[in-house]
Amino acid sequence: MGSIAADTPHPFDPLSLAEIETAINTVKKAHGQVFFNVVSLQEPRKAEMTAWLANPETTSRPKRFADVVVIAPGGKVYDGLVDLAEAKITKWDLLDGEQPIITMEELQLVEHVVRKDPKVIEQCIISGVAPEDMHKVYCDPWTIGYDERFGNKVRLQQALMYYRPDIDNCQYQYPLDFCPIYDADKGEIIAIDIPKVRRPLSKAPSMDYHPAAVEARGGYRTDLKPINITQPEGVSFKLTGREIEWQNWKFHIGFNYREGIVLNNITFNDKGTVRPIFYRLSLAEMVVPYGNPEAPHHHKHALDQGEYGAGYMTNSLSLGCDCKGSIHYMDAEFPTRDGGLRTIKNAICIHEEDAGILFKHSDFRDDSVIVTRGRKLIIQQIFTAANYEYVVAWVFHQDGTIAPQIKLTGILNTYAMLEDEDTHGWGTQVYPGVNAHNHQHLFCLRIDANIDGPNNTVFVNDAVPSEAPVGSPENYYGNGFYNKRTKLATEGESKTDYNGATSRAWEIANTNKLNPYSKKPVSYKLVSREVPGLMPKEGSLVWKRASFARHAVHVTKYRDDELWPAGKHVPQTSGEPSRGLAEWIGDGTTSIDNTDIVLWHTFGVTHFPSPEDFPVMPAEPMILLLRPRNFFAGNPVMDVPPSYASTPSQILAGKQGVLDATDKLSTLAFANGNGASCCKSNGANGTH
Amino acid sequence: MGSIAADTPHPFDPLSLAEIETAINTVKKAHGQVFFNVVSLQEPRKAEMTAWLANPETTSRPKRFADVVVIAPGGKVYDGLVDLAEAKITKWDLLDGEQPIITMEELQLVEHVVRKDPKVIEQCIISGVAPEDMHKVYCDPWTIGYDERFGNKVRLQQALMYYRPDIDNCQYQYPLDFCPIYDADKGEIIAIDIPKVRRPLSKAPSMDYHPAAVEARGGYRTDLKPINITQPEGVSFKLTGREIEWQNWKFHIGFNYREGIVLNNITFNDKGTVRPIFYRLSLAEMVVPYGNPEAPHHHKHALDQGEYGAGYMTNSLSLGCDCKGSIHYMDAEFPTRDGGLRTIKNAICIHEEDAGILFKHSDFRDDSVIVTRGRKLIIQQIFTAANYEYVVAWVFHQDGTIAPQIKLTGILNTYAMLEDEDTHGWGTQVYPGVNAHNHQHLFCLRIDANIDGPNNTVFVNDAVPSEAPVGSPENYYGNGFYNKRTKLATEGESKTDYNGATSRAWEIANTNKLNPYSKKPVSYKLVSREVPGLMPKEGSLVWKRASFARHAVHVTKYRDDELWPAGKHVPQTSGEPSRGLAEWIGDGTTSIDNTDIVLWHTFGVTHFPSPEDFPVMPAEPMILLLRPRNFFAGNPVMDVPPSYASTPSQILAGKQGVLDATDKLSTLAFANGNGASCCKSNGANGTH
Ligand SMILES: [Co+2]
Ligand SMILES: [Co+2]
Repeated sequence: MGSIAADTPHPFDPLSLAEIETAINTVKKAHGQVFFNVVSLQEPRKAEMTAWLANPETTSRPKRFADVVVIAPGGKVYDGLVDLAEAKITKWDLLDGEQPIITMEELQLVEHVVRKDPKVIEQCIISGVAPEDMHKVYCDPWTIGYDERFGNKVRLQQALMYYRPDIDNCQYQYPLDFCPIYDADKGEIIAIDIPKVRRPLSKAPSMDYHPAAVEARGGYRTDLKPINITQPEGVSFKLTGREIEWQNWKFHIGFNYREGIVLNNITFNDKGTVRPIFYRLSLAEMVVPYGNPEAPHHHKHALDQGEYGAGYMTNSLSLGCDCKGSIHYMDAEFPTRDGGLRTIKNAICIHEEDAGILFKHSDFRDDSVIVTRGRKLIIQQIFTAANYEYVVAWVFHQDGTIAPQIKLTGILNTYAMLEDEDTHGWGTQVYPGVNAHNHQHLFCLRIDANIDGPNNTVFVNDAVPSEAPVGSPENYYGNGFYNKRTKLATEGESKTDYNGATSRAWEIANTNKLNPYSKKPVSYKLVSREVPGLMPKEGSLVWKRASFARHAVHVTKYRDDELWPAGKHVPQTSGEPSRGLAEWIGDGTTSIDNTDIVLWHTFGVTHFPSPEDFPVMPAEPMILLLRPRNFFAGNPVMDVPPSYASTPSQILAGKQGVLDATDKLSTLAFANGNGASCCKSNGANGTH
Repeated sequence: MGSIAADTPHPFDPLSLAEIETAINTVKKAHGQVFFNVVSLQEPRKAEMTAWLANPETTSRPKRFADVVVIAPGGKVYDGLVDLAEAKITKWDLLDGEQPIITMEELQLVEHVVRKDPKVIEQCIISGVAPEDMHKVYCDPWTIGYDERFGNKVRLQQALMYYRPDIDNCQYQYPLDFCPIYDADKGEIIAIDIPKVRRPLSKAPSMDYHPAAVEARGGYRTDLKPINITQPEGVSFKLTGREIEWQNWKFHIGFNYREGIVLNNITFNDKGTVRPIFYRLSLAEMVVPYGNPEAPHHHKHALDQGEYGAGYMTNSLSLGCDCKGSIHYMDAEFPTRDGGLRTIKNAICIHEEDAGILFKHSDFRDDSVIVTRGRKLIIQQIFTAANYEYVVAWVFHQDGTIAPQIKLTGILNTYAMLEDEDTHGWGTQVYPGVNAHNHQHLFCLRIDANIDGPNNTVFVNDAVPSEAPVGSPENYYGNGFYNKRTKLATEGESKTDYNGATSRAWEIANTNKLNPYSKKPVSYKLVSREVPGLMPKEGSLVWKRASFARHAVHVTKYRDDELWPAGKHVPQTSGEPSRGLAEWIGDGTTSIDNTDIVLWHTFGVTHFPSPEDFPVMPAEPMILLLRPRNFFAGNPVMDVPPSYASTPSQILAGKQGVLDATDKLSTLAFANGNGASCCKSNGANGTH
């Protein structure tokens, strides 16, 4: 990087506190006091960035720009750019009918307003809450989704209402049945959605998960013995700024308010050749549609990343509980609404884990064997979307596989119900008086592919039987089958769904480069099995607003700034027309054959709640794989040191010369247990 | 257990060495010297066993029987039973046209015969192997599947042929192109399948995975730092005989020659009530169909458990390499072919692992938080089916979930190919001269359900949109969706396939017992996403022989001895008629509604090999879940001690009284790294 100072940010680095401050001051100077919704890195233009990455010594370094979104007095929304080196605004657009992301600070305000609003107090009384107990009333403010009564020129939140008999009770046990609507510009409640059937506050005893409640029920179990995980010699990864190197992988770890973790310029050192794989990976959007069609639940759905931000909602992680072992943390830095600065300490945790057996083979003839244990690298964040928590982990394996993993935990969104009320199948009574509605969690993984270079092509891969009938000469025993590859030639053709019966996978290939042995294009395959269909129907509000969720896969030609598939400003979009992906694809004629492409993959779970999920849910994991196929010329992990290896010649020589690097800290569980010294026990075929 | 001696076996225990010996001696006494293929526990009749389990003090203990299969002189196959207490044969049936399982000892014999057979030597010469190099010729003997030229009265193996230039070379790099057929009764080669196109022995340099080869290529990577996993206070599970207790779970761990690990009488202690969940769980059969329809590959498929046995092929596991941490092992005991005894030391390993976050929630208002880490218990075996290894793990979670997991590793089955030969899409050149054929690995999980008692019912669960159109009063915003439950009333109706679009799951319910809150039947759901269709066509040999693989799920009424869905004696079955599941289901009219049922689930992967898989495959995992739904009245893990918990009142009191049990051994990765004391860092919303 030539003469650039050591503290010069990498072009992919998030804005530093100093840079955020520069942007804020620049805006304030020009436009006075405004509310800052966003001050975030505008990522470098790709053409400029790839030129610099290819030749940092001689190419000029991409300039740093801040993407700034503010709300000015009168509710005017501006979307601008600040050139940070020059402290100069280079773009300043007034938006019309677009609502920027809702910040945590905006969310925090609503509860205070709700508690004092006379109409809300009146409804609380109807529900059975005494006016003097209004401090026990809580609300989770959500965007309104889209509500045609109000449109999108007024900035709104709907307040999902709850009650806590005691300050430490889990409020989701005590939902209130009405829903105030908050006008963020006025700072007041402008309407209340009141259901026809009223459901008074539940009188059920609380069932809390906090320690005092557990103690009162008999206390914690005492039979769990500790498992210690330590790395006395340190970790196996190396960081230079935010660039990490581990087991042939190298990539940059970014973070923004919207997507949270962003991984850039992911490469793999293949025996000395640094091979690009992905230019950028992120969880770009999500949608959580709820399935109760009765008002006011019918517009209950959350596009959490676009509406609140997986970065803004991210947790400050803790050593020894969120993360165990030897951990490296990175902070996240954001503006406050009034132009201050805030730091989320430990927003990202990075650590290694043992990954079990990486490969093994033993020869049945002589029990010669090799056992090699694997390791994985995990880049993780956890964000809290009101009731829910999402644990997002980017898991790197030594064999070239990247396995994004999401765990769902936290608390169900709940609504009030009468005793023995019929839920009509739209929800489940998870506790007396608590109706948890059916919902989906659908995530959109944005894969900016760079498989041995930017020009890539996507093929659908389906396992299909031979067309020849059983008994025919071409397929006498009827066993023939093959991998049917279908090229997705245009953005329109790329709209594809999952097919479990054919083990469908999507192959991101570089057709310009063939594997030396298989003569097939080098590729990464997207192997994803948790791919439910979108339950909201075609033409529904969710279908319109979250166009990415209509299909498991869309592919677009790369265009700068097409980052978020429900659009940049998501709150209160009507879906007419659909923003983001549907808009970008348009008539679908754009070629995606052998060009710079982005694959958008929607996956997730359909969640029918059950009492096991209440009052707090045991984590449910979801995993998908990006696997090298025909990418390497052979198994890329043969040089990972084995735990044990013996060859036929060593067996013949009485095990002389065997490689024994077994873990000496492993022990038998019981002193009187049956065990054997490692790998030297009688073989599988040893006779007694 | 009253006055029964401490060393009296549990009725589910595998036969002890002494019992095996008793059975062998009893048979020898009656029938002279025979070859012993099987001497294994005949599991107690269920009616008798459940009576005893319910009341062991007053009910008579089920008697112990040995299931014995032998081959007598002249190739006569007998299937018998020995009453062990009486040392008496109680059944002795001569089989006709049925071949019992092929033992490891039988497999071992073939290579020696092949090397000396003049016709094989002749073919080796044609392939380019000198007669003096016949000791470098190897074969993997497989059952023949079924071959109409020979039928099933002659006991056969096909010898897949390989060569090792050096004794330590991986032979799968050097396949030979012809296939001798071995008659086990005669002990000689009776035919050789010779392809029309000859493919001489590959001259490619070897690419081995053994240490010397890795060293010659530059050596092992040196940048992996150790991860130590220890349990200084011991493990959290308890064993009484083969019954394990851990985190409210209790079950018996059996093992047999066929299925390997068998788990019986699985119960969960739900706040003092011991609730039955599964009477028996096992991997009951598998099939690996290969997809090349060209002779002689067209009959290449393995029903590994029925043909060779996941128990017989199981590895002796090693402390510190196959298993890391604090491990308990169990041995497996079998007869030898000539009536001796053999022990596979450490056939099963049992250990705990940290399972990451079990649940978490933080309140966005005040950052009050609970973080609880999970633990899992793993019962594992690894078996080697010639080239392949299967790592089978039964993973128990604290929340009542059982997650069977299979990892595939080992080596591809390979065949010879000419330079630039067209594989016609039936395989992939993974290395010069090495064609790895397309194949599937399909496993059949046998679930003998006992959800709060034996009378259970299976429902298909599909997530489906409301039938009401978008804009209609019943579904105005189009978001309505629900869980459509379809009862499988008869064995015929139970034949069901996976549907990813509807997030299909199978609900094993006890309709006689409703959850107190949801009023839905208590149930366990089978959530399985790796469910490819069977690629061999309807009417094909594989379709006929492996009827369990025709559908993702079959359900049958429980009947004693219906354990293995391709039949008891699998080698050389013709599939006419289909043995096992198809035979048991018959016309499909048997009711499975509210009765004792068994669910058979076929899952797996479709494998199109690529060079990354060669010469040894990085492990590919597959996982499925058996999850309690509406089974518990609430989250069953709230009493697992949290790592950290703070309540709103404690936050208000300056964090006084918070529960801090964070792992004190966790450290920051870098001394100069950025970190914070656990859970006491600035909250997510803390301002800078
Ligand atoms: Co959910
Ligand atoms: Co395979």
